[in-house]
Amino acid sequence: MITAEIIAIGSELLTPFRSDTNSLFLTRSLEEHGVKLVAKGIVGDDINQIVFAFRTAFERADVVICSGGLGPTIDDLTREGLSKFLSIPLEFHQDILNSIEERFRRFGRKMPDINRKQAMVPQGARVLANHNGTAPGIFLEHSGKQVFLLPGPPFELEPMWEQYALPLLRKGPPYERKSFRIAMLPESQVDEMLKPVTDNLRDVQYTILAAPSEIEIHLFAPESAADELISAAAEVRSILGKHLYADELEPLEAVVGRLLKEKNRKVAVAESCTGGFVCQRLTNIPGSSAYFDYGLITYSNEAKTTLLGVAAELIATHGAVSEPVARAMADQTRKLAKAYYGISVTGIAGPEGGTLEKPVGTVFIGLSDETQTTVNEFRFIGNRPRIRFASSQAALNLLRLRLLD
Amino acid sequence: MITAEIIAIGSELLTPFRSDTNSLFLTRSLEEHGVKLVAKGIVGDDINQIVFAFRTAFERADVVICSGGLGPTIDDLTREGLSKFLSIPLEFHQDILNSIEERFRRFGRKMPDINRKQAMVPQGARVLANHNGTAPGIFLEHSGKQVFLLPGPPFELEPMWEQYALPLLRKGPPYERKSFRIAMLPESQVDEMLKPVTDNLRDVQYTILAAPSEIEIHLFAPESAADELISAAAEVRSILGKHLYADELEPLEAVVGRLLKEKNRKVAVAESCTGGFVCQRLTNIPGSSAYFDYGLITYSNEAKTTLLGVAAELIATHGAVSEPVARAMADQTRKLAKAYYGISVTGIAGPEGGTLEKPVGTVFIGLSDETQTTVNEFRFIGNRPRIRFASSQAALNLLRLRLLD
Repeated sequence: MITAEIIAIGSELLTPFRSDTNSLFLTRSLEEHGVKLVAKGIVGDDINQIVFAFRTAFERADVVICSGGLGPTIDDLTREGLSKFLSIPLEFHQDILNSIEERFRRFGRKMPDINRKQAMVPQGARVLANHNGTAPGIFLEHSGKQVFLLPGPPFELEPMWEQYALPLLRKGPPYERKSFRIAMLPESQVDEMLKPVTDNLRDVQYTILAAPSEIEIHLFAPESAADELISAAAEVRSILGKHLYADELEPLEAVVGRLLKEKNRKVAVAESCTGGFVCQRLTNIPGSSAYFDYGLITYSNEAKTTLLGVAAELIATHGAVSEPVARAMADQTRKLAKAYYGISVTGIAGPEGGTLEKPVGTVFIGLSDETQTTVNEFRFIGNRPRIRFASSQAALNLLRLRLLD
Repeated sequence: MITAEIIAIGSELLTPFRSDTNSLFLTRSLEEHGVKLVAKGIVGDDINQIVFAFRTAFERADVVICSGGLGPTIDDLTREGLSKFLSIPLEFHQDILNSIEERFRRFGRKMPDINRKQAMVPQGARVLANHNGTAPGIFLEHSGKQVFLLPGPPFELEPMWEQYALPLLRKGPPYERKSFRIAMLPESQVDEMLKPVTDNLRDVQYTILAAPSEIEIHLFAPESAADELISAAAEVRSILGKHLYADELEPLEAVVGRLLKEKNRKVAVAESCTGGFVCQRLTNIPGSSAYFDYGLITYSNEAKTTLLGVAAELIATHGAVSEPVARAMADQTRKLAKAYYGISVTGIAGPEGGTLEKPVGTVFIGLSDETQTTVNEFRFIGNRPRIRFASSQAALNLLRLRLLD
């Protein structure tokens, strides 16, 4: 078993305002290549803390991957930290300096002197070229360990990793992962439904991850257990059936878009409490103009009447957050847009506006086509962003289920 | 100087699909109470790795705060890890078990046997009550160090921290932070503009953080340098002027909402390439119904004509992504909604649809009121989500600037 630790270096990553995201990309790649991540760490721009982090990582992992701290400023100390920890001096590389100078020239600027620092490399290390920035990466083998120093910006780190680091990485027997997503079912219910499969797994590892209004299932196995993985995945698919909306973590809006394209149908949307969230998600998918033309954000009662022609008395009688208004909104938006489907969302996202009868989180979702109009009532829990996301999730999932009929 | 390390425990946090977010909340609280975070770490549900993480943290920090691994399953090993590391036995607490049983009873369920485990506490430790879940927190002082074990779910961790952990935390002289946000200026330009202030700081620390289409400025100082902090903040405000849209990290849509409310004016929005992003952001703010009624997502040419009455010839002559169409969309949406302001966004978010003359990232933003209609052309760089976010950011910022006039 080859083990790895990822260390993100940078004082800004110890503030309340920034997270390390590079490690998610790296983790994905490591598991594909049979390397087990045992720890992740973050330290600031402090030479002693960096040395300490290297020492710790050398104790618990075979491969140490660092991101950040390769820039030209006095705060960039990753090279120095590695050099100090291993007692290996830094050497000046003229060819690196040349390529940094060349890069500045291409952008019509003169290289500042401080960038010379980026041409310093620990003796015996290999340089990893950076085609997207000035900081070269560094690779070193020492005492049986592999060390990779990578630049912090993801658009520099990712291509460097793929092109230059990955070929050098010590690899293990690869692992495979099958992932599934489910909307609108509670975690405990999904977990219970899958027990017949998950209780009998041998070499396949099962994880269930719950986010608001979305459950992810992961099955994870070494290549040697590929058959068990395939059959477990097939059982999961068969148990969850239509509840399962995606293999391989495709977003719900992409699945809906694919189904609309396959059937050559369009959808129009009228939103109240979600205020554009459903439209925004649908149009986040490239090529969505094939199936989406019209969205109407009718936030006020007057807008529902003026834009959609929902009768003012209907709203006065039942309230804007009601089954009949959701029904009228869905029907009217479909007709107005001459679309195959009309979706509507009207509800109370809070924190104000709830009543005893219709508390915050009450949401009606309408779905209309030529043959039928259905309205579903939900009671979502959580704060405003969570209720809005859950509503958009429910709307897209209802459309997905209708498309599968 | 009191130092802290935060350790998140849980194998799911070492997958490509989950990040630790509790540490951001904890970091904010630590800095308010004068405790310096020196490292953050993540380890999986493995007793040896947990022991190793405690040993490392005891070497480099005075306060060790763990989240996660306090649940009832065999994977929950944080208690056991601390007990093993310090060679302190776990003791059974009948009163904890009683309160867990009581909690189950309240939800009409019988406590499963496995939850007994959560009543085990290291000898001499103090129990931190959990009013939002079954896992109690744990506080222990040992060899001059403070250790806090907190549950993983944020809605359990956060109130427990505030109510029970914080009063026990060893505190230092507090630090203060002044934060500012700027939209639509490049990082290098902001950095350059602020040099007269930032080059002369003594005890105040300056950080500039760039995200797509948004810059954050942080000034950070111990209480003893409060005067310098106040005067530096005043200089930053005066240099950045209108560019600065928020003190204290208020979102741009909240600032715009506040200004609209103050002036008692409404805005209506017509979106093409952003597909609802602007409306979604505006309505994410509680109380936005005071200033937002109408949003029109006119994704196709036909929708622009039918819904907004943009002349078909105008689109045929200039293209949907053009100055005259953006102008017409902004004017028409304002009139249709009888709003004070009309905003329009039309552009090419990609990856398809770009031309030599109008490459991907070309976006026209219109802003109309009774006295004038302006259209700004942008060339945004990046992928589809980035271009869409930048467009929404530019639209909201143009409205903000108009509101300040």
